[in-house]
Parts: sequence; C-alpha cells; structure tokens
Amino acid sequence: MEAAEFRRRGKEMVDLIADYLENIEQRPVYPDVEPGYLRSLIPEEAPEEPDTYEDVVKDIERVIMPGVTHWHSPYFYAYFPTANSFPAMLADMLSGAIGCIGFSWAASPACTELETVMMDWLGKMLKLPEDFIAGTHGQGGGVIQGTASEATLVALLAARSRAVRMILASDPQRPETGITSKLVAYSSDQAHCSVERAGMIAGVRMKKIPTEQSDKYAVQGETLRRMIQEDKAAGLIPFYFCATLGTTPSCAFDHITELGPICNAEKIWMHIDAAYAGSSFICPEFRPLLNGIEFADSFNFNPHKWLLVNFDCSTMWVRKRSDLIGAFKMDPLYLKHDHQESGRYFYTDNSLFRSLKMWFVFRMYGLKGLQDYIRKGSNEVNETLLKRINNGRKIHLVPCQLSGQFVLRFAVCARTTESRHIREAWRLITQLAEEVMQELPH
Amino acid sequence: MEAAEFRRRGKEMVDLIADYLENIEQRPVYPDVEPGYLRSLIPEEAPEEPDTYEDVVKDIERVIMPGVTHWHSPYFYAYFPTANSFPAMLADMLSGAIGCIGFSWAASPACTELETVMMDWLGKMLKLPEDFIAGTHGQGGGVIQGTASEATLVALLAARSRAVRMILASDPQRPETGITSKLVAYSSDQAHCSVERAGMIAGVRMKKIPTEQSDKYAVQGETLRRMIQEDKAAGLIPFYFCATLGTTPSCAFDHITELGPICNAEKIWMHIDAAYAGSSFICPEFRPLLNGIEFADSFNFNPHKWLLVNFDCSTMWVRKRSDLIGAFKMDPLYLKHDHQESGRYFYTDNSLFRSLKMWFVFRMYGLKGLQDYIRKGSNEVNETLLKRINNGRKIHLVPCQLSGQFVLRFAVCARTTESRHIREAWRLITQLAEEVMQELPH
Repeated sequence: MEAAEFRRRGKEMVDLIADYLENIEQRPVYPDVEPGYLRSLIPEEAPEEPDTYEDVVKDIERVIMPGVTHWHSPYFYAYFPTANSFPAMLADMLSGAIGCIGFSWAASPACTELETVMMDWLGKMLKLPEDFIAGTHGQGGGVIQGTASEATLVALLAARSRAVRMILASDPQRPETGITSKLVAYSSDQAHCSVERAGMIAGVRMKKIPTEQSDKYAVQGETLRRMIQEDKAAGLIPFYFCATLGTTPSCAFDHITELGPICNAEKIWMHIDAAYAGSSFICPEFRPLLNGIEFADSFNFNPHKWLLVNFDCSTMWVRKRSDLIGAFKMDPLYLKHDHQESGRYFYTDNSLFRSLKMWFVFRMYGLKGLQDYIRKGSNEVNETLLKRINNGRKIHLVPCQLSGQFVLRFAVCARTTESRHIREAWRLITQLAEEVMQELPH
Repeated sequence: MEAAEFRRRGKEMVDLIADYLENIEQRPVYPDVEPGYLRSLIPEEAPEEPDTYEDVVKDIERVIMPGVTHWHSPYFYAYFPTANSFPAMLADMLSGAIGCIGFSWAASPACTELETVMMDWLGKMLKLPEDFIAGTHGQGGGVIQGTASEATLVALLAARSRAVRMILASDPQRPETGITSKLVAYSSDQAHCSVERAGMIAGVRMKKIPTEQSDKYAVQGETLRRMIQEDKAAGLIPFYFCATLGTTPSCAFDHITELGPICNAEKIWMHIDAAYAGSSFICPEFRPLLNGIEFADSFNFNPHKWLLVNFDCSTMWVRKRSDLIGAFKMDPLYLKHDHQESGRYFYTDNSLFRSLKMWFVFRMYGLKGLQDYIRKGSNEVNETLLKRINNGRKIHLVPCQLSGQFVLRFAVCARTTESRHIREAWRLITQLAEEVMQELPH
C-alpha cells in the first residue's frame, strides 16, 4: 500500500471509526462467544500472496466485532473507565506516522521535551508541590509509564536501590544480597494485585497492612507504625510503602497525611498509587483528597483512565529524578550523544510519542473542559432537575450545599411513607433526570 | 470534538501523514536544536479554555517537527530500523477506537484470541518447532510484549520462579531468599544492555560471557561450559542463559546449537533474543541462523523493527505457557470470569489490541511480500544491474551463486589496477545501481 492508497483507506477508516463510536450503544456490550471462537473463522496460516484490503475490512465485522467487549459503550460498567477521545486519537495517528523511539533525548528531542513539559502542565493542574515539577532547574519531574502497575514497580525498584545505597554507605562491607533478603515493603490489603506482583518481580518481601470496614478500608497510621516497629525488631529493613488513593474494590483513600510523616521519619519511600481517582484532583473540590502528597517520594495516576487521553498514558512524578535514573542507568556506547549529561531528562526507555496525545487533549478541552468532564454535570443541571421535580408536585424535596456542590437532598420524613412510595419517587426522579440530561448540549 | 468534526479532522490528519511520509527525505534527518528548545515555544501551563484545532495543527510544524529525529527518513542509519507501514497504521487507528484493555480473555475475547492466532501464524512463518505453537491443544505459544527488553526480563523472571520451585521441590525447608542469592544468569558480553538491566531488576547475579573477535563475537559452548562448572564449584546455581542472535554492535550470532544442549543438560533456561535479526528468519535462506531453537525455553524478536508492524510489537514464544503464567499469577476477584480456567491463553496484562496490526500487515503483504521486504531486492534486480555494468564496457565483472542468491563478484585482477581505478569502478557501480533501483515499481 502506497501513500496514495493510504489517503483513501485512511479516510474510509476515519468514517468507520466515527460510525463505530456513534452507534456503539446498539451493540451488545459483552460478547456472546466461547473461548476459541475466532480460530475457526480465519485461516490457520498467513496468506502467501496478499489479501485485498476490502477482504480485511469485511472481516472486522465478521471476525473481530463479535468478540469485542465494548469498553466505550455507555452500558459498560465493569472494571474501570478507559479513556477515549477524538483529539487523543488524532494525536495517536500523528504519533504512529512519526514513529520515533524516544529512548534518549537525541533519539527524538521533541519526544523527550514535550513529555517533560506536558508532565509539568499536568502536575500544575493537580497543584503538585513544586518539588515534583521539572521546570528548567527542578530536581524532580514527571515521566510517562505504560500502566500504574509499571509505575508501582519502577518506584519499588528505585526505593530498593536507594535503600541498598544508604545501607552500604554506612556499612560498605555488607553483601548486597544480604541486604535485599531483609528488605520489607508494605501496602494496603486493599491495594491492586499489581503491587504484590511488583514485590514478586523485585524479589522482596511485601506485607499487606490490614484495613477495617469501620475505617472505610483506609490504612491507618497507627497500624503501619506498629508493623514497622515489629519488623525492625525482627531484624528486617522497612523501605517502601505503596499508599492507594482510590482502591480498586471500593475507592478507599489511605490516610497519607498520617502515613507520610511516619514514612519520612523512617526513611521509607512513599509511593502513591491514585491510578483511577487521580484525574479528579484537577478539580479544586477534589484536590483535598491529595493532601499529604508533600510527604511522598513518587506519585502516579492514569490519565488513560479518566482524563480522556487514550491508553497508554500513566503519569508518574518523582521528587528526585536522580533516584530513578540511578536505579536503571546503563550507558552503552550506541546510546551516547552530545547532550548525554544535560541531566534535565529522564532516561525514558521505549517511550513512544505519548505526550502528543496529552498535548492535543489538554489544548482541545482546556482545563475547564477537563474539569467539566470529571464533574459530568454542573450545579445548574442539578438546580434544573430540582425545579422540575418540585414543579411536578408529585414529590417534594429540598437542596443542600456540600463543598460547593448543589446537592439534591432526599429525606424520608412522613410516618406514612412505605417502600412503594420511595420506589415510585425514585422512578420519577430518574425519569426527570433523564429528560434534563437529554436536553443538554452534547 | 464530536464525531462529525472528527470525520473532517481525521481525514485532514490522514493527508498530513501521507504528506509527511511522502516528503520526509527533504527534512533534515537529525534536528538542529539544543536541550530545552521546546519549553520556550509553548505556554508554561495548559490553557483554561480550549485552543482551536487549527492552532494545534499549526504548532506541529512550529513546535514539534524542528525537534524530531526522522526515523523513517531514507537517510536514517542510526540505532536500528523501526517499522512503519500504512496497513499497520490503519490497524492502529481501529485499535485506538475500539480502545479495549485486554488483561484477560473476558476483557475482550477478540483481543486475546487474535493475538494467540497471529502468534501462531508468525511462528509458522518462522518454522518454529511445534512446541512453540499454541494451536488448540499445545502447551506452548506466543504472546506480544512491548519490547525485547521486556521479554528478556519476563523470561528471566519465569526462569527464576522455575529454578526456585525445582530447588524447593527437593529441599522444601530451604529459605527462598537463600536460593535467590545463589542464582546466576549468563549472557554474552555483546548482549544488549537491557539483559544486564533485567538481572538488576530481578535482583540476581548476571555474568557476562567473554567473546573474541576471532570467533566473530559469538558465545562459544566451551566458554559457557567452563563458567558453569566454576560457578557450581563455588556454590552458585546457574539458572538462565540469554543467547543473542544478531547482537547490537555487530549482529553476531551465538552458537545456539552448541549452547542449547549444555543449557538443557544443566536445566538452565535458554532464552533467545533475536530482537533485530529475527524478522529475516521468515526467508528460507536465513532460517538456518535459527537452528538450535529446538533447545530453547523461550524466543523473542521484534516485528516492530524489521517486519513492517509499527511499534510496539515484540513477539515472544515459550515452550510451556504454564512457566510464564505460574510466575506471575494473581487472581483478584475483580478479574475472575466464567472462562477463567480454559487454560488456553496467557494472562496478557495490559495488552492493547496489538495483534490487529499484525493481522493487517500479514494479510496486506502476504508472506511473499514480507520476504521481498526483508530481501529488499531480488535476483532479477541484481542480474539487470550486472547486465548494465557489462554493457557499459567500462568495467567488467562476473556473477556467482551463493545460497540461492545471484551475487555480483568483484575481483581485483590486473597487475595494473590502482586504488583510483577501484574508486572509479565503485562510483560507476553505485550510479548504475541507483538507476536500476529508480526504475523499479515502488
């Protein structure tokens, strides 16, 4: 296929994509196929001679679509959101065409530099402490990872390397393997399974901190403090704590304002995994959930979940870039270049031009547009809904104000109210809410 | 941006991409910018209100292009090739729109299944031993990784897990950290730096096997055998050897037909890293370079380097899927589904729909088209060139046949030949070769 044909096929593909996304809610969200369904639909070997493009396109509906779980269907409530926006898709098209591999500054300066600046933009949207912003002279900064799992592992490895260095500095004769076998890392028993896996990969002990329903499944400072003391008494070396802001099962928030100072005092690396919830911190009303970030060594969340930047784009910031670079540094001659020691950048192995889609999305939505997307609704919409409800005169409620939000308050008041009245009221509320939503500009 | 605008902007982007790639050789291949160039060209923060799309597109030439190293310029001879083809780009557009996250079969069956079948297609193109093909009943099979570095690490972790299990089976009381600290892995001193890094990440000893220029920088069986014996005598446990087929500095090939039986006898996991050279094995005349694969536990190469499938697509096969699955298995409730134990698939964490681009590329080129791309030229072209050279009657040479290839043979014969004659002959040959190439259908 040459450029001329690509011009035609590419435009057809743009229409196919727009058609798919415009009509996605008509497809069954979860496919009705059995394992192995696909193998029987296509040949057992690649063709010797090329197929026609028409045949390939026909097979998208015949072979692929029947087996797709449609993550962007409005009926998809499983797992977690995965971002999908038109500006990000346009940026990805461009990124694919440029097709550079950004494993060093010289391998494509624009790729490294745009990533550094976009991470600053996003860090400022989140009001991260100045320490995490690269700027022109900062020691910290951000780097894009593929997933939060990767970021958790990278942070753990950097923490392991820092711990070993600190111990060797005071006891240079101690064998390194002897240190590693004493290291102990912590996370909530509610943490994502990738945290435990990071411990397995790095070959270090990983302990789960128990949480209680009565504490809303949040790790408490006191529990961590006790475990650290017990482990130190047993001769172990606590070195890493992965806090979660927004756990997978119940969106629980560990108490990092309590936990952070403990980690700092014990020289334990505190990593914060806010994979899912982190996007919300761009709204001032949700930003308090991130209080305590000032005690962290590293922080990560996934714009590819809830900030309209298509997968993959997992953003990670560290207080000291040198901690990360030092843990992985390799300098083969074939990667050396004139600006090797500018020290301004991460050694971003295997980076695609992923910052392009951040740039497109941030500019095409603007901060306000992104905040609106997180909020998905506004005080005005809720006020309209309340008016409709009360104007209908079938049921009656009053609003309240919570942290700047206009909230509809539903109180069960009358002695005569039964379940059936509440069910009826709920049906009316949802019906009116739907009408209000449908009248909104898209 | 809504679907209607995406239809328009997407088509403009298709043209922008086609224009970029058709005219790429007119751009300077390596950018003339200093570190930090980009920061001053754009604002310090994301806009509050959206920018216009026109402004974003204008900034591609103003901000991005001046800092791009153009990997697809015909003047780019640095690092290694990175694949870029129109069918792969079309598939990536579709993959971005479907935007599913394939971390389990249920998360998108088509994603997992197409990957398994495409890995079989490619394995058959390479004539891999039957053990590496999943089929409907095989124990082995292929899985897509992001990079060869990732595959090297994954293989090393699976090997570590297997070694620990084997030792614990015979000595259940031995502490696991005591085992890890005795493990030793090997690779060539010519191996890619990521192999050493894999050892650092996994926290195991990694030894470099010395190679000699006189052996064309290939690891010899005798050297490995000696190191294993010395290490075992010192109480260490050899468990992993990463062989390279096509090293980064000089494209050297380790002697896997000698090394494989040693690894098998010592129960050492042999991983083969053919990141760059592996694509060539689809041509029968290059397939002998892969002889010895029958002794390997795992094998990896990068279609995203030399097989026209855009980054990322690093293909890895293992003899026993259970070795890989066992090393990383985590079963949180939120990832359970009805077909959990079908056992047919890898647990492919974080997989995008990367197999789509393999499918598009394999079908749009066909095996023959891919082989032609690897060969980049044919016997016919070489014959035409020889005819032109000899018809010109300025210089004279004769051909020979080497492994089925028509080769132009240049012998310095006459007593009177000086350097200047050879330089002149070379100029003529390259000039005629260029003419022949330009007359070829693109």
